Amino acid sequence: MTPSTDESPLFEPHNRTWISETIPHMGAAFSLKTTQKLDEIQSPFQKIAVYATEHWGNLMVIDDAFMLTSLENFVYHEMVSHPALFTHPNPKNVVIIGGGDCGTLREVLKHPGVEKVTQIDIDEQVTRMAEKWFPELCDSNTDPRANLRFDDGIKFMREAADASADIIIVDSTDPVGPAEGLFGPAFIADCYRVLREGGIMVSQSESPFYHMDVLQNVHRAMLRAGFSDRRALLFPQPVYPGGSITCTLASKRLPLDSFRKTSAAAKTFPTRYYNVGIHQGALTPPEFVRVALEAI
Amino acid sequence: MTPSTDESPLFEPHNRTWISETIPHMGAAFSLKTTQKLDEIQSPFQKIAVYATEHWGNLMVIDDAFMLTSLENFVYHEMVSHPALFTHPNPKNVVIIGGGDCGTLREVLKHPGVEKVTQIDIDEQVTRMAEKWFPELCDSNTDPRANLRFDDGIKFMREAADASADIIIVDSTDPVGPAEGLFGPAFIADCYRVLREGGIMVSQSESPFYHMDVLQNVHRAMLRAGFSDRRALLFPQPVYPGGSITCTLASKRLPLDSFRKTSAAAKTFPTRYYNVGIHQGALTPPEFVRVALEAI
Repeated sequence: MTPSTDESPLFEPHNRTWISETIPHMGAAFSLKTTQKLDEIQSPFQKIAVYATEHWGNLMVIDDAFMLTSLENFVYHEMVSHPALFTHPNPKNVVIIGGGDCGTLREVLKHPGVEKVTQIDIDEQVTRMAEKWFPELCDSNTDPRANLRFDDGIKFMREAADASADIIIVDSTDPVGPAEGLFGPAFIADCYRVLREGGIMVSQSESPFYHMDVLQNVHRAMLRAGFSDRRALLFPQPVYPGGSITCTLASKRLPLDSFRKTSAAAKTFPTRYYNVGIHQGALTPPEFVRVALEAI
Repeated sequence: MTPSTDESPLFEPHNRTWISETIPHMGAAFSLKTTQKLDEIQSPFQKIAVYATEHWGNLMVIDDAFMLTSLENFVYHEMVSHPALFTHPNPKNVVIIGGGDCGTLREVLKHPGVEKVTQIDIDEQVTRMAEKWFPELCDSNTDPRANLRFDDGIKFMREAADASADIIIVDSTDPVGPAEGLFGPAFIADCYRVLREGGIMVSQSESPFYHMDVLQNVHRAMLRAGFSDRRALLFPQPVYPGGSITCTLASKRLPLDSFRKTSAAAKTFPTRYYNVGIHQGALTPPEFVRVALEAI
């Protein structure tokens, strides 16, 4: 038996049934009870592991950060997709940067008007693990409109043609390691250039309770890039640090307040988190977030 | 050094710097890094402890469940108060059941039209601990409109006169131990009786991710008691299991959709979570909650 340390109280060698994500700068940790480690590989970019849990279905962990569970990934995947797709008047060409688990791709392809989705994740092994352990998220990978590429999303966006996309969704891991550049001003300025007029960018922008600095930096970069409207949509995500997270919508000229409510109310596919009232409500952030984002 | 067990992985005798709340039926745990145990007493009703944490200020723990932290209690206290107070046209007489930490009382008393607030918590020691370790929540305890009583809230409500309150806020611990009856149909029916026409009841109703059964039971009891409109307001609460929680508003005749938006926008006190858009947005629950509550 090895004593635990102050910095890592929960990954205890003598207690393999619990797995924990520790957030040192908040002095907080979240733990799930597992029944089995199903898989683990070291890709060229990161360590990817999948566990079976007692109550959350399967859990994907990348570099010791909890990525998604079978139980509650629906919230994130719906919120990173449908608000943008029901705001753009006629989204045809969608780009997903990251998103290797393919859950966002699946939600985007539920919109019948979408003609092409290009997904660029740097790490093919994330998609291979998702196909194996989260097959329900990969339902749409063989849709003829889906174009899965495994490449550097920053390079892709730098080389992409001006005004070639209607929506860009940045579905990334945390801003450390391979995803760090996806939160930076150069990448966000490229997204602005690659969007058509009326286009919308969506970016994972962390929890205001845990990472207000990241949220502010993303908004600052979007403001400087020229985006005319920005909204931090806050939603619960039990498996992420702090239990909630934001994605930020930024638009190239389109006011984000006026989304296609009638289409959203008459959508032809079911959702479990998203609905018209949730979309409307998410457009106003909590007061402390509003104040912090006005101060950037 | 004592080995941990499967049921209690984190309260490790050899690792006193972390404190954890484990939710066995979800196979989940949340932990905070502490610097010191500040206080602990066994009251006639429950064990109350207060810790200093590294990043969350002080933490109150009752019977091993995390109750509140200095850092983020504002979300809960604002959401359990202001939506109800800005919906009722002219709330004068407010009753708080539970609420011993006095944070809800403080928010309610920010409304200048309120003439009297009666707070009934069964455990005086919760208030004594709050006065000592969360003095900022007890700012208004000496307000002449505040009437603090330490008694059984269920008995109080059973004996209260018909149509004597404008708003009843049930600010309770989880539905185990002393608070169990506060989630039951007899108590909720008493609240209905004690409210005036146009009155509003608010009840803590747990997380839909962790305790959908509790949320449904509260709504079922409210429906049977005769409440004409009910809304589960979901909001983030990083220190609670699952990272988010609901409070449910139930009204005696008043439609909850039409709240006093102009008054809320012109409120004379600052808030950190609540604003008009947050209030409006919270009136629509996520789709999976809507479906679960329609099925009761």
